[in-house]
Order: sequence, then structure tokens, then C-alpha cells
Amino acid sequence: MNARECTLEQGLRRDLKKFSRWLSRLGFTPGTSGNLSVRLDSERLLVTPTGVSKGLIKASDMVIVDLDGRLIAGTRKVTSEISMHLAVYRQRADIHAVVHSHPPIATAFACSGRALNEPLCQEAVMTVGRVPLAPYATTGTDEVAASMRAFLTDHDAILLANHGVVSYGTTLLDAFMKMETIEHLAHVDLVAHQLGTPQPLVADQIDRLQTARSKYIHNVPDKPHDLKTCSPAQSHGMGAA
Amino acid sequence: MNARECTLEQGLRRDLKKFSRWLSRLGFTPGTSGNLSVRLDSERLLVTPTGVSKGLIKASDMVIVDLDGRLIAGTRKVTSEISMHLAVYRQRADIHAVVHSHPPIATAFACSGRALNEPLCQEAVMTVGRVPLAPYATTGTDEVAASMRAFLTDHDAILLANHGVVSYGTTLLDAFMKMETIEHLAHVDLVAHQLGTPQPLVADQIDRLQTARSKYIHNVPDKPHDLKTCSPAQSHGMGAA
Amino acid sequence: MNARECTLEQGLRRDLKKFSRWLSRLGFTPGTSGNLSVRLDSERLLVTPTGVSKGLIKASDMVIVDLDGRLIAGTRKVTSEISMHLAVYRQRADIHAVVHSHPPIATAFACSGRALNEPLCQEAVMTVGRVPLAPYATTGTDEVAASMRAFLTDHDAILLANHGVVSYGTTLLDAFMKMETIEHLAHVDLVAHQLGTPQPLVADQIDRLQTARSKYIHNVPDKPHDLKTCSPAQSHGMGAA
Amino acid sequence: MNARECTLEQGLRRDLKKFSRWLSRLGFTPGTSGNLSVRLDSERLLVTPTGVSKGLIKASDMVIVDLDGRLIAGTRKVTSEISMHLAVYRQRADIHAVVHSHPPIATAFACSGRALNEPLCQEAVMTVGRVPLAPYATTGTDEVAASMRAFLTDHDAILLANHGVVSYGTTLLDAFMKMETIEHLAHVDLVAHQLGTPQPLVADQIDRLQTARSKYIHNVPDKPHDLKTCSPAQSHGMGAA
Repeated sequence: MNARECTLEQGLRRDLKKFSRWLSRLGFTPGTSGNLSVRLDSERLLVTPTGVSKGLIKASDMVIVDLDGRLIAGTRKVTSEISMHLAVYRQRADIHAVVHSHPPIATAFACSGRALNEPLCQEAVMTVGRVPLAPYATTGTDEVAASMRAFLTDHDAILLANHGVVSYGTTLLDAFMKMETIEHLAHVDLVAHQLGTPQPLVADQIDRLQTARSKYIHNVPDKPHDLKTCSPAQSHGMGAA
Repeated sequence: MNARECTLEQGLRRDLKKFSRWLSRLGFTPGTSGNLSVRLDSERLLVTPTGVSKGLIKASDMVIVDLDGRLIAGTRKVTSEISMHLAVYRQRADIHAVVHSHPPIATAFACSGRALNEPLCQEAVMTVGRVPLAPYATTGTDEVAASMRAFLTDHDAILLANHGVVSYGTTLLDAFMKMETIEHLAHVDLVAHQLGTPQPLVADQIDRLQTARSKYIHNVPDKPHDLKTCSPAQSHGMGAA
Repeated sequence: MNARECTLEQGLRRDLKKFSRWLSRLGFTPGTSGNLSVRLDSERLLVTPTGVSKGLIKASDMVIVDLDGRLIAGTRKVTSEISMHLAVYRQRADIHAVVHSHPPIATAFACSGRALNEPLCQEAVMTVGRVPLAPYATTGTDEVAASMRAFLTDHDAILLANHGVVSYGTTLLDAFMKMETIEHLAHVDLVAHQLGTPQPLVADQIDRLQTARSKYIHNVPDKPHDLKTCSPAQSHGMGAA
Repeated sequence: MNARECTLEQGLRRDLKKFSRWLSRLGFTPGTSGNLSVRLDSERLLVTPTGVSKGLIKASDMVIVDLDGRLIAGTRKVTSEISMHLAVYRQRADIHAVVHSHPPIATAFACSGRALNEPLCQEAVMTVGRVPLAPYATTGTDEVAASMRAFLTDHDAILLANHGVVSYGTTLLDAFMKMETIEHLAHVDLVAHQLGTPQPLVADQIDRLQTARSKYIHNVPDKPHDLKTCSPAQSHGMGAA
């Protein structure tokens, strides 16, 4: 595969690296934590491997697995958290990318028995909606997938108790932006809690926002982000502003 | 328009990109949130489009709208928040640029029923002054413009309840620096609140600062910032230090 | 040693610079604080010198010392904290790199009489485990080494009372990732404390995580990180995800 | 002055730019706040001008003033805060550089009637020592210089009530590192305050640290930092580690 053979896979490898490094710069993936995946075709996923810092990962580090999580190609090993990703892809045919990381403030919510389901910011309603907290499950076991199941259909992001956050979307960018937004919302929630006078949105306000949002959803950008890679068109961003 | 034809518009496109990315690095524009605009001439605005991450935006993504917010040029769509920008330009002929974003701490103030109107830092008086909190209005509707109206004449920045912040000035740099300053002032306020012994400025101190400030205002730098773009001279910075 | 002579030492000098600058960007090494070392061979260590900002350090600044901390080579001076590093290397033959820094939140724990030994995040159990707090010892004296001794065998990172943190591992990357992880865990702990309802892991949960962890340890990546330097293979990362 | 004429002045212009931008990245200079100066010779200072963002400043923006603060050379205007710098240079012949900025946490201490004079971190004693809080003075007037006078001889950094921080040293790097360290110490203090069990150093511990420190001071690095500019040797760093 030379420089001119710019394939879908090559573009997605670069996108995985790009968003891995962005997550690392944000401080969401200390050590080797965090993993990202994207559908390569109807039977294969391209995934970040186990044991690699997201701040140092390279496009060639990625592994290819089938929809049972078995290694098909790559010189590194499959993450023990692959079943978390598979659970999303199996239940949501519309999802093409999954991001899992440990954003510090949202993770503290998940270590405190708190979902992000009392929106303070209108942005929350327009983008990720209410973010539930899945019950405790041992990291790296199938318990995690099981703990997420009840929330997968109605939510695009889930807090994992004493663990971290998983978000997913139609593209890697879409899943990444949801992750970034969740930490932002958790930050705003924390500060409002510290100030002592949070003013959560009331039912009527949320209703009106959902009406406005449905208008946006029929008005999605017809041009995708240009990620300056050779990846195919990335369509359908997250909400709109 | 080739590389040598360095026009006003091209420079402003680069400035919009530059400050979009700076806001993104500061964490003020999670997801696709935030939007920036600048006057192109007496009848047109150059604006960031809807649905694009401010960390990935390109100069060619910008759209041109008229003073009613109608798309004149560009391949992307107009933000649903354009009426917020139009409200500023209509009421303030002296304003040439508007920045809207979600800086996390200032947004938490706006989600807690709190304006930034009890200055702790002398810097506040010398730059943005008291920053009011506009009442609740549904994002992306004309309610937002209406909620801002009473504050536009006497203030250069406004907190928007359960939403974020809008700032504006004679240049994009000026509007950006006000946004940056507001988050800084909110951060100082938060920490002083956490320490438990905030010492707000008293009336006499504020009077003396305003006297000093008026001296600066008659003494503005006669040389603009050089943004290393082909934009025209950017005059009149924010206060002085 | 010209550009083509890409030796082990040259690679390790670059790694020391790389991780020094990364620590600086994270805000863990204000002023000239912090120091890093790595085994060069069975008798020599390569170490950052005293009195240099980690944000400005160069590969040529490093000094070489013997296992008694005596300067063997280099034009700068040996850090007064060298005995902290020597204490680790003497007691732990498996350790090849030591990182000492002042990450602000973990340091605040160390200034508050608090260890990081009540894990909230599953990540803690899978990576650094319980992090003890060594008792007070005067910086830059042999008291520091003595204060660490009781913890060195069973832990890979230690908080130092009213001082900072030391972490160590099989490679510089491994030691760095532990430092990064400790600050992340302290951040999550702080926010959970602020939210007021922390849910620490219970004994049974920790047992199950340790079982899962031991499975990973037998399943370490067989390929090291590629640090894009000429350093030798860096093996054995920190845990897995 | 062409590219080959690499003079002292040219090097110091680059250093002023370098540390201005570093302060900006740290968030210590929102808007156009903050200013830096350095002795050019026995009669002249090189200073950042008024009204310019420290994140955009260029080497050619600097102005030259005499020891009364009168403009000697440069196309921009002198900062209204020049008297703060002059006060330091007049009282301290050993000082060659002054940095003034608004680091958010330390500034919140200064807005809360709190000095940084109860050290928690040993680092504080080894570097900046106790940092006093100068009483309220109107920004941009001679009151500021007067408010600092009592502290200048015995301290190398001062909090300015409801304003910010000033630090100074033998080089710009030295003054910058003190500023960076003060914000770090304020951050640690804040978090220890939030955790609720701060353990300040006791008198005997401070005495032993001061003894250790005096040993370092006679053992300063004999090689300066290499700032990769054409500036002259920068000697005498801040303490040691």
C-alpha cells in the first residue's frame, strides 16, 4: 500500500490515531486506558490494541477483529474491553464508531453513583441528552456488556460505574464529540454544585428544546467534516449549533 | 482568488479559523458548539457554519449571510443561532465581531442564576465591566435575541441562562479576548468562593478604577495586533495593561 | 557519536527529554522541580540534572552517575534528590526507570496526610494499585530514601508527605504512565469528594479485579511502544486496557 | 540589524516573546493582561508594550524605556503598569527581570485577603519562600509600587490584592519559574483546603529545609539554561531539585 493507494482502511487508521491523541491531550486516557473502534465493513472492526498509550499510538498499531472480537489482522493484541464495543455494534446497526475513555470529572460522577440526567445546560438536551449510569460490572469481563444493554437503544453515551464513559455514533468524530461534550457537561454540573445554586432545566423547557432539536435533525449538514485524511465522507455530525 | 490575491475576506476567514481553534483548545466549544461572526461590509457577515467542530474548522467552511441571516454564499448551512449575532449587529453599529461559546465555569454561573457583576479582580473593571445574566431563552430561537436586548447597549458581553456566553467588540480579537477574560474572572470568582473569604471591590475602588480606565481609553494603542494574516488593520484592542 | 551512531544511550537521552517535556506540559514540574532516571547498564544511571526546567531540558543536559550517585559524565550537576532514585534501584532489581514530580492534586493529598488507598476507579486496581503515603522526610536528604523503604517492595508508586510523588517501572514510559495515572486518580477522588457521595470499591469487587488483572499480566503485549527514538525495545507496559 | 547580527537585545526580545507565549498558554494573561521586562543595560529596560495579547506578541513589539519609564525606542506604547517594574529594579540591584501576570488560583488568593505564607509543600520553602500579600492599590497608578515597597527586599514574589502576582529574578527564566511555581503552590493549597485536612509545615521542618536550601544556593548550576536564542548566558536558576 503506497502513498497513493489511499484506502478506506488507511483513512480510518489515521482517524483512530487522530482521536486517540486528542483524547490523550484532553487527559481522558491516562496510562494505556481508553479504546476506540470503527466499522471497517459489515463483518470487521478496526480497533486500538491493548497496552498502548493513546498519546503515542500509531496508525499501524490498530488491530482488525471480527464481530465476535477475534483477531483477524494486526501485530498487537485485542483489548480485553472489546466486548463493550461489540455490545454496541450488535444492538445498534446505525452505529459505526465507539469511544471508551476515562474523562476525570464524568468518571468521578460514575464513581459517586450519579448519572448525568438532570440537565443544566441546554446544550445537553440538544446533543447527548440524558446520560445514564450503568450498574457496577468488572472491567474486562462480559459483565460490562451486560450492564450496558438496557441503555443502548435509547442513549448514545453511558457512564459506567466506578469505571468511565462509553459513547458511540455514526462516525468516530461523532462519538468523540459526544465524549468531549459529556466531560464538559460534567464540569459545568460540578461547578454549579460548588456554587450551590444549580438551576436545572424544567420539563417545559426540555420539551421546547426537544422540539427545536427535532427541527435540527431534519436539517443536518449536507457536507461532512473534512478530516484531511483519505477517509471516506464522514456524515451526520452531532446535533448542530 | 489565488495566493497573491490577499483580500479582506480571505484574511477574515483565516481569523475566524484561528479564533475558532483557539476557543476549541481552551475547551469552550465542545462538540460543534460555539459560533463566531465578523462584518464583511455594511451589508454582509462572514460566519462559522452549523455542525462543524471548532477544532477542525477550515477557512473555506465559513458562510456569508446578509443582515437578515439569509445565506448569500458558502457550501455549508447557517447556524440556528444567527439571530443572536444579528441582534448585536443591529443594536450596536460600533461592533464588528461576535463570539459565542460555552466556557465551562462561566456557563456554570449562567446555569446557577448568577451574573458576574460583583467584581473581585480589578482586571474586571478595566476590561469587560459587569457581565449581566440574560433570562432563560430557548437556544436556536428568536427568544435568545429578545433576552439580550436590554443588555446590549451598556455591556460588551452577556451570560445566557442555562446556555453560555456571548461577547462582541470592534474586532474578532477584541471579542475573543473578552470571552477569554470572562472565563478567567469566573475561575477567580469560583476559587475565591471555595476559599470562603472573597473580598469584592467596594464602590470607591470601582470609581477610582473607572477613572483610570477612562484615561486608558483615550490612550489606545495606535498600532493594531499583527495577526499574520492578510486581514486589514485590526484596531482598538480591549482596554490596556 | 555522529547522527548515524544511534546508540542505546542516545535513545535514552531522548526519552528522558521526551518525558520531561511531557511532565512539564502536564504542570507536574513547576520551576526546576522533578527528576527522571533510567538504568544505562548494570552500573550506571542516566539522570536529569539539577536546576533545569523540565520544559526546556535537552538530551545533552543529562548526567551519568554510578549506583552511589557519583557523577561519571556530563557537564551539569547531579540532583540533590538522587538518593531517592538510588533507593528504588537498590531494592528493586526489576525496576529500570524512576520518575519523580509534583502533580498538583496528588501532591495536595500528600500535603493532607492522605494516601490514595481507597480505590474508587477500577483503573486504580488494574494499574498502580494502592498508593501509600511515606512519612515526612526533608527534601534532598537521605531521610527521603529511608522514608520510602517500607513501601518499595510492594508498591510501584509512593506519595511523599508535603513533597510529591515517585513512580517507577520497567521502562521510562511505564514509570511516566504510572505518574500520569496517579494524578488522574487523585483528580477523580477529589471530584467525588466534592460531589459528596463517593462509592469506593468494596473488598469483593477488588478481589475480582485482581483476578482479572493477573490474567492480563500473563497476557502482556509482546510488542513494545515505538517511541520513534533509537532506544532499544521498551518492553512490558503498565497493565492493559 | 540583519539576521547575522545576533545581539543581546535581539535575544532578550525573543525571550520576552517566548515567556509571554508560555504565560498565555498557561492561562495567566487573559486579554491583554500581564507584562514582562528585562534589564538591557544599566540604564535601559526592554518591556512588553500595552494593549497586546501575550499569546500573539512578537519580538518587534517590545519597547525600550529608561529607569523613569520614559519611552526611548519602539513603535508601541509603554504599559501603565511600568511603575510596578521600576519599583523592583530600583530597590533590588540584583534583579534583572520582572514578570507580572494573573494566574487564576493565586489571583483568587489575592482577591480573598490571603497570602501564600503557610507552606504546605517543601518545594515552597526551597524556591519562592513565603509569598506576602501587598495591600490594595489602584492598578496602573503609583499606588501599586508603594504597596509593594515593604516586601521587595525580603521576597522575590508578591501577591497584589484584587489584582494578580509579580515575581522577579536574575533572569527572565528565573522570574517566569517563580510565577509558575506560585500558581502550582496555590493550586496545591486550594486542593488541600478542599480535602479539609491540610498539614502545613511546622517551624522545625522549615528550619531544616532552609538549612538544606542554603547548601543548594552555594551549589548553583554552573551552566545556564540554553534557551536556543542568541541571548547571553542566563545564569543562576531558581533553587534546585
